[in-house]
Amino acid sequence: MTPRPSSRFMECLQYAAHKHRDQRRKDPAQTPYVNHVINVSTILAVEACIEDEAVLMAAILHDVVEDTDATFADLEALFGADVCDLVREVTDDKSLEKQERKRLQIANAAKTSPRAKLIKLADKLDNLRDLLVNTPQGWTEERRELYFVWAKQVVDNLRGTNTNLELKLDEIFRQRGLL
Amino acid sequence: MTPRPSSRFMECLQYAAHKHRDQRRKDPAQTPYVNHVINVSTILAVEACIEDEAVLMAAILHDVVEDTDATFADLEALFGADVCDLVREVTDDKSLEKQERKRLQIANAAKTSPRAKLIKLADKLDNLRDLLVNTPQGWTEERRELYFVWAKQVVDNLRGTNTNLELKLDEIFRQRGLL
Ligand SMILES: [Mn+2]
Ligand SMILES: [Mn+2]
Repeated sequence: MTPRPSSRFMECLQYAAHKHRDQRRKDPAQTPYVNHVINVSTILAVEACIEDEAVLMAAILHDVVEDTDATFADLEALFGADVCDLVREVTDDKSLEKQERKRLQIANAAKTSPRAKLIKLADKLDNLRDLLVNTPQGWTEERRELYFVWAKQVVDNLRGTNTNLELKLDEIFRQRGLL
Repeated sequence: MTPRPSSRFMECLQYAAHKHRDQRRKDPAQTPYVNHVINVSTILAVEACIEDEAVLMAAILHDVVEDTDATFADLEALFGADVCDLVREVTDDKSLEKQERKRLQIANAAKTSPRAKLIKLADKLDNLRDLLVNTPQGWTEERRELYFVWAKQVVDNLRGTNTNLELKLDEIFRQRGLL
């Protein structure tokens, strides 16, 4: 059998595109938000050679609870417990204050399961690639620089997960003088 | 092996999302254009039970030559001749005047290959579903009504391709008093 997207993968892609339809990235071009989650899943399939469908689906869904009205109960009913649990592992608790969430991302990274670590690495890689070429609207240069520093602290706690992704992240950190 | 999206499928999805990034649908909510091509491919996978990866990829790419700077040479180099030829079959000749293109869609529908007919049916189904709930920005009610009439003429020349899709299209035509 040739690999092909399953109908549940397509449903999850359609669901994420629909839920994120009103959101845009912070780049000056106002790229649709769904492009980011497509990038994260594509990084995993193409650059990390991941064939685990649940991981590729969770990558598509990784921001849908954090940033839209979707709930974990929705995801579990629609896509099953495995996909839902992966999304839960990569979702920040939005009831906490922003600085506390950023601190927890560093602290919690090491405790994450290996499959969820893959999604976190790919998420950081796509965000940092964006940040290399764009300063988000309303950000100062200092805020941008601090994002690289913070992202490296998170990534340092995700290491030993996927050589390709870590090499590509390190290339970026080197470029920014952080390694 | 579990079905899973291949890296070429993910690359094609990422490519289409990137190429269409500045385009929006004509609905009042300005939905990202990529949502439409995701819907068309999802309709084929979920509602028509298509497992032919090249057809699902061509559905993702079906408007990329017509509406962005992508060329058939790009598609052939990136995704191969089979996918490229399917996209060619569903691409209007933009050098022609709009009314002539609409006339040709009716005339050419019957000559299309069965795999390309699937994409045309799913494309019409997603467009008509949109049109049932939204009047596109700048359209009069009459223009909207004429779109349903024209779409039925195209669909009538695509029949005998997929029962599920044709039943769902007919439900819409019935709802609009055209059947
Ligand atoms: Mn993200
Ligand atoms: Mn279309």
